[in-house]
Amino acid sequence: MIKAGIVGGTGYTGVELMRLLAMHPGVEITLITSRAEAGKRVEEIYPNLRDCLDLVFGEPEPHRLAECDVVFFATPNGTAMQLAPQLLEAGIRVIDLAADFRFKDPKVWEQWYGQPHACAQFLPEAVYGLAEINRDAIRQARVVANPGCYPTAVMLGLLPLVEEGIVDSTRLIADAKSGLSGAGRKASVAGLLCEAGESVKAYGVAGHRHLPEIIQGLEQISGKAINLTFVPHLMPMIRGIHATLYASLIELDVDIQHIFASRYAAEPFVDVMPAGDHPETRSVRGANTCRIAVHRPQSASTVVVLSVIDNLVKGAAGQAVQNMNLMFDYDETLGLQAVALMP
Amino acid sequence: MIKAGIVGGTGYTGVELMRLLAMHPGVEITLITSRAEAGKRVEEIYPNLRDCLDLVFGEPEPHRLAECDVVFFATPNGTAMQLAPQLLEAGIRVIDLAADFRFKDPKVWEQWYGQPHACAQFLPEAVYGLAEINRDAIRQARVVANPGCYPTAVMLGLLPLVEEGIVDSTRLIADAKSGLSGAGRKASVAGLLCEAGESVKAYGVAGHRHLPEIIQGLEQISGKAINLTFVPHLMPMIRGIHATLYASLIELDVDIQHIFASRYAAEPFVDVMPAGDHPETRSVRGANTCRIAVHRPQSASTVVVLSVIDNLVKGAAGQAVQNMNLMFDYDETLGLQAVALMP
Amino acid sequence: MIKAGIVGGTGYTGVELMRLLAMHPGVEITLITSRAEAGKRVEEIYPNLRDCLDLVFGEPEPHRLAECDVVFFATPNGTAMQLAPQLLEAGIRVIDLAADFRFKDPKVWEQWYGQPHACAQFLPEAVYGLAEINRDAIRQARVVANPGCYPTAVMLGLLPLVEEGIVDSTRLIADAKSGLSGAGRKASVAGLLCEAGESVKAYGVAGHRHLPEIIQGLEQISGKAINLTFVPHLMPMIRGIHATLYASLIELDVDIQHIFASRYAAEPFVDVMPAGDHPETRSVRGANTCRIAVHRPQSASTVVVLSVIDNLVKGAAGQAVQNMNLMFDYDETLGLQAVALMP
Amino acid sequence: MIKAGIVGGTGYTGVELMRLLAMHPGVEITLITSRAEAGKRVEEIYPNLRDCLDLVFGEPEPHRLAECDVVFFATPNGTAMQLAPQLLEAGIRVIDLAADFRFKDPKVWEQWYGQPHACAQFLPEAVYGLAEINRDAIRQARVVANPGCYPTAVMLGLLPLVEEGIVDSTRLIADAKSGLSGAGRKASVAGLLCEAGESVKAYGVAGHRHLPEIIQGLEQISGKAINLTFVPHLMPMIRGIHATLYASLIELDVDIQHIFASRYAAEPFVDVMPAGDHPETRSVRGANTCRIAVHRPQSASTVVVLSVIDNLVKGAAGQAVQNMNLMFDYDETLGLQAVALMP
Repeated sequence: MIKAGIVGGTGYTGVELMRLLAMHPGVEITLITSRAEAGKRVEEIYPNLRDCLDLVFGEPEPHRLAECDVVFFATPNGTAMQLAPQLLEAGIRVIDLAADFRFKDPKVWEQWYGQPHACAQFLPEAVYGLAEINRDAIRQARVVANPGCYPTAVMLGLLPLVEEGIVDSTRLIADAKSGLSGAGRKASVAGLLCEAGESVKAYGVAGHRHLPEIIQGLEQISGKAINLTFVPHLMPMIRGIHATLYASLIELDVDIQHIFASRYAAEPFVDVMPAGDHPETRSVRGANTCRIAVHRPQSASTVVVLSVIDNLVKGAAGQAVQNMNLMFDYDETLGLQAVALMP
Repeated sequence: MIKAGIVGGTGYTGVELMRLLAMHPGVEITLITSRAEAGKRVEEIYPNLRDCLDLVFGEPEPHRLAECDVVFFATPNGTAMQLAPQLLEAGIRVIDLAADFRFKDPKVWEQWYGQPHACAQFLPEAVYGLAEINRDAIRQARVVANPGCYPTAVMLGLLPLVEEGIVDSTRLIADAKSGLSGAGRKASVAGLLCEAGESVKAYGVAGHRHLPEIIQGLEQISGKAINLTFVPHLMPMIRGIHATLYASLIELDVDIQHIFASRYAAEPFVDVMPAGDHPETRSVRGANTCRIAVHRPQSASTVVVLSVIDNLVKGAAGQAVQNMNLMFDYDETLGLQAVALMP
Repeated sequence: MIKAGIVGGTGYTGVELMRLLAMHPGVEITLITSRAEAGKRVEEIYPNLRDCLDLVFGEPEPHRLAECDVVFFATPNGTAMQLAPQLLEAGIRVIDLAADFRFKDPKVWEQWYGQPHACAQFLPEAVYGLAEINRDAIRQARVVANPGCYPTAVMLGLLPLVEEGIVDSTRLIADAKSGLSGAGRKASVAGLLCEAGESVKAYGVAGHRHLPEIIQGLEQISGKAINLTFVPHLMPMIRGIHATLYASLIELDVDIQHIFASRYAAEPFVDVMPAGDHPETRSVRGANTCRIAVHRPQSASTVVVLSVIDNLVKGAAGQAVQNMNLMFDYDETLGLQAVALMP
Repeated sequence: MIKAGIVGGTGYTGVELMRLLAMHPGVEITLITSRAEAGKRVEEIYPNLRDCLDLVFGEPEPHRLAECDVVFFATPNGTAMQLAPQLLEAGIRVIDLAADFRFKDPKVWEQWYGQPHACAQFLPEAVYGLAEINRDAIRQARVVANPGCYPTAVMLGLLPLVEEGIVDSTRLIADAKSGLSGAGRKASVAGLLCEAGESVKAYGVAGHRHLPEIIQGLEQISGKAINLTFVPHLMPMIRGIHATLYASLIELDVDIQHIFASRYAAEPFVDVMPAGDHPETRSVRGANTCRIAVHRPQSASTVVVLSVIDNLVKGAAGQAVQNMNLMFDYDETLGLQAVALMP
């Protein structure tokens, strides 16, 4: 039984981690921290956890964290990099759900996140936790950078095309639609039901923090320079990302359905639908699945990939548990087999 | 391993049964029927079940049903009563999620459901499947009438008051709010997102079919005549019922918090919140829980009970699985321990 | 052409006032204030007003307010009572959309709003701006207290019963359901789409500030002591209140449909539906209408009244414009005839 | 005062026409038809129209239609082409909100709408009712083909780029997001709140009927062959379209903000936002506005245009009234100045 700690457990990725770990047969949550809510029982904030977990939010005290086998950081960007070094030195493995360990180049981190990196010495060994490309490295990793939600949906959707080198890597477009839970559980006007309900808008067109993450990932895969236009949108719903991806084929005589189906045939959490289908975000609600359909309208040179995830599961907490399973030699799907909630 | 059949599996209670049974360690779904969709694979209609179930909708052929240990009817009212007799005679146990076996008096059935009863001879032995009052009878039952969604929320909310005889049973009010999934998955104008979204309305104030069911249940519990005003409302959401219940105390010197907490202390699926709390329907989304809070505003004689369920789980498929567990001597909570999805 | 000022124009009642006044042929908005947003153009916060209004948020400077004919306060509770006295002394008429002038007894204000009243000397002359009971007084008023949103829906629904004295005034129940916009446009966790979406909950069961307002109003109408249980609920939608009202007839031989129809026959903004109907909140979206249906289930002694409004229109800004029309001898419906937006 | 008839008034474009025409000072609705609802009063289906209109749905009788000055067809595709010829011959002007008169080439109609055209002789003179390109022709037209909702949002967003010839017309991408009301008011499973709520999906990627309409329009404007990938998506909301448009600049030294601002400076219903802004669909809810923002992320060659409309107003009924105003020499904005409803 692994002992797991969660630092920063009051946000949506935190509660989702608790939900998944509470049902996981190989893990015990021994510690959960929140500076703001220290002293409160978890069910006071998340009544869905009443009778499931017997936990009180505490301060992130190092000696208690040191008793864990693995520590999840479900904290704002810039927190994990402060606390992770001493945990790693104490032999505790770390999974960061924020962006602190996602970039190989600390200057990219600084540019997009607006602060110097506190432990750049760990960036070379940190493993980007997308099992579909880095499975073996994750097994050995001391520190795993859990991917962002948009990057998960976009990269899994473009990966087979980019690996095969059959599309123009300088003309990629990712039009992504997200539910509001991606913005987290913090008081704001923009996230109010009265502001975000019954409306759609794009945001961050000039540049979103997930853009360099996607580019780094696709460049690693392809070995080529990537040029991608990324436009995120807010949808009036709670969970779900739908990435609509556009790429120009440079070889026309290809069977893209076959390419996707083969690439993901052995992947437990990527589902390629039959040709002609359209995935719905609700079909993965609460599940650790990325569901994909590929199209080539009018048999022309533009490929359209539709890729959906639950941003809090495969886009955050579920993928973190998947990574934990790999790191601790559990079956990769352990605790992650619940069926999506539909309707 | 129990072999279970589901008759009428294309509606929302059908898919919810499949979701729950797919994760249940003691059941195998051996058969699923739908006249309208016969020949289709379940995942064509419910893509959340892709890779979870290997089932094709078929016709409800008697010889195949006869190979099951238990058959669930997730059919429209009036269907189970046609098919159940021969199953019962063949020794197969039946759980009906519709109303066919809910009334002891076939005339009440006829009056509210508009058709004569096809097998009134089975009504005396049919057990109303609310484990919180009929647990022992359910264990022995050949045929269980799974309660309606509104009756579950209303009866669990009023039960301790009525059992104790401390409220005026002739002045009960149940103001109930339901998500749209209670109306089922059938083409209709009234259920369109454009008709039901961003709006609230009452319906059926003159008389709703769940009214006689609630009255029958409360009269059985109290042994007194019950007079209840029941007003159901549609909420712009998918899942969840919130019953707000009003009763007049006839004894004022009572500790209602204690009465509820004691009554439900041993119940695995009824959660009484601390005094002063307000349950949210989302806190039980996907879970088989009825969550209750009790209030007595300004310490006056009116008790206000707030009772929430997920209408598709504790109000339908989850409660059906709970009944199946009892009927087959499984732990009552087996396969029903998943944490609610929140947010 | 009346010159109108709006103090506190950044909230939802503020923008709704601007929307209505921008289309009103007899009013010019000459001034809009917001301390927090001073210097910003209104369309930066409310892009629906682009090209409709040429206004910049300013400080609430007394000399500029003194140039108005009427000043609307769309401010938090406790603000209008600070600024109104000098405006009233300068001959400017005041319409307060908050609660400052709603109570005749300053002690009730203090008890429920937690602060001493700053200008209790004006309370005797302040007129409660529910035209359906105080029309003539509103015409003459210097200061009008615009009713709360819940009180508007509840009082209009109970008024005919209470005026006629045919129900037990000690056993009234108001079960009210509101969209989120009633909570205003301020950063909060509870109002996030991810917290309030896809869920229903009651709140403030122990006591809500609108309770004493309703009781004062009904006692004024009936001349009797009123005992009312008021339970507000949050619905996952933006606009709309649905009040479901329960009362016990003390005379059974009455035609309640006729009583309601007669009482409101001449009212331009109260619509009594045919017997048996159920109003939807969306049928009044954006309109200054209170739509009512009355029921008497099973012909018993309990009357059920269904009363819907748009909380931002008849429950706030629209009613304020209605009051302004009366105060300045305009046709009561001027600028308020737009048809509700449906779907 | 123009006499207007509406054929097929029970759908969402029908009720929206009634809402707008009821408030229009220069029009009287003299006739409304619906075969399915003949004999019902309009407010029985649309209670928002209670007390606004005194109309009963009737059969589409030719002699009564012949008394109108203009007849709007808010009917399914293929209906107007049956009835329009005799109206046109009787001197009555026709505005068709369906697709019957949108294509110059009857073969395109046949290919995409699956039936031969019943009055192809009128296609040459029919004017495509997008005032921003065909204003003068609309003034003279006997029959106006009101544009589709997606084409309106997409064409207004691409028009300045295509007119100027500064983008590669063979690589256009339109990723469009629509509320459910675009699918109309007909009983269906796919449109249920429980199916379409809390979820996003693309549909019709292989080919949507609005694709040839957009291509015909852009080819007319540009005089060049257009190659466009069009992917429509369903959003969990009622009203609104957000088109996100991607184009590759072939000249890099251009000021796209200036090009859009100049092109639409004199247009009453197209609003170009300041550089860097992001339009929200709710900012045009109920208004006849197309609101646009243009971006050029990282100053690269890809232009991103964000274009929002209310699909039932500028995308249907509002644009039809705008066309009627032009045809009858009214001010183009008459009856269309209501401010959008926000929140």
